[in-house]
Amino acid sequence: SASSAPILHGYFRSSCSWRVRIAFALKGIEFDQVPVNLIKDGGQQYSEQYKTLNPMQQVPAVEIDGVTLSQSLAVIQYIDETRPGLRLLPADPQKRAQVRMISDIIASGIQPLQNLYVIQKIGTEKVQWAQHFINRGFQALEPILKQTAGKYCVGDEVSMADICLVPQVYNAERFKVDMDQFPTIKRLNQTLLEIEAFNTTHPSCQPDTPADLQK
Amino acid sequence: SASSAPILHGYFRSSCSWRVRIAFALKGIEFDQVPVNLIKDGGQQYSEQYKTLNPMQQVPAVEIDGVTLSQSLAVIQYIDETRPGLRLLPADPQKRAQVRMISDIIASGIQPLQNLYVIQKIGTEKVQWAQHFINRGFQALEPILKQTAGKYCVGDEVSMADICLVPQVYNAERFKVDMDQFPTIKRLNQTLLEIEAFNTTHPSCQPDTPADLQK
Repeated sequence: SASSAPILHGYFRSSCSWRVRIAFALKGIEFDQVPVNLIKDGGQQYSEQYKTLNPMQQVPAVEIDGVTLSQSLAVIQYIDETRPGLRLLPADPQKRAQVRMISDIIASGIQPLQNLYVIQKIGTEKVQWAQHFINRGFQALEPILKQTAGKYCVGDEVSMADICLVPQVYNAERFKVDMDQFPTIKRLNQTLLEIEAFNTTHPSCQPDTPADLQK
Repeated sequence: SASSAPILHGYFRSSCSWRVRIAFALKGIEFDQVPVNLIKDGGQQYSEQYKTLNPMQQVPAVEIDGVTLSQSLAVIQYIDETRPGLRLLPADPQKRAQVRMISDIIASGIQPLQNLYVIQKIGTEKVQWAQHFINRGFQALEPILKQTAGKYCVGDEVSMADICLVPQVYNAERFKVDMDQFPTIKRLNQTLLEIEAFNTTHPSCQPDTPADLQK
């Protein structure tokens, strides 16, 4: 029903699922998780049942307030616009624009080019391909963040930009990108990972995290 | 100065530049265009000068109110939040979420995978690659739009979702995607192209449109 807890259909290691987990945690919203294993059974996201939740056959999909939403930034902004608590976007329009610009550099300019589906389709040189696009994106983000960042990506308030940054750095580390090239990104990531909402939602400690990947 | 007309650095055929042109036109905002030729001189977006405007070295970049913004959806929402006139996102939070979901399926799920830079990097089978990702995205969009659409993508008001849809259909046609598979998308595109703000901003009639591509 519309009044029950939101349901997140996601995968422990999906950076887009992690974004939504952080947003719920920052807002203090209880939610249920239904794991969608992107590897097992040839990819559970390809089932007919899951396709009705997200026709793109990607995670996440979120059932909330009687509707089903996909696309993590749409979900995060919906949560922000309908729930009280910490603001995930600043009140100032220029700061909001900077938060969205940084979020979209990651969500449109980096993540789609290094996600599982595309990497599988590339065939050879998967790691080099992913590294190339993460490096290109981070080379753009680093000077932008040097201008916008305070303690966090935009000023001193946690925002959607931070929610996008941390899972993307996690992906960068999986693909062995040299993070020493990006001191601002590295510093922000370290600061953010100390916040409980980023820490408790980490891929290493989700209900569907395999035992050998748990910390 | 902050009070002068916004400057759009873009390219006639870039779908992300066209999105911003439509948004300005729907809002009735005068703007100046500075062409960035993505082909000439090995790509003018790679110049050191342009890199300061958009470190991702992509179009568009927009100078507005004393700041420089990139990422078309961040620009469009900034315009919407700071300018009067037609709303580009609906007031209702669930409808706003649907508008953002549809916009992001295009802006994160389709366009980045078929843009010039990626297509150039693929090497062989460029057209098949682009067709594959446009087909995959449109196969997801078609059932979503069947549920959300009225006269336009979400209900009967033009929104950011429509601003994203029309330029993506233009790209689909360039890559010879069979649009008869997607009757809802096709119908929406035809309806939208009759609106002046979509028509006057079309790639076929911009200041930098080459003579042989003008209509």
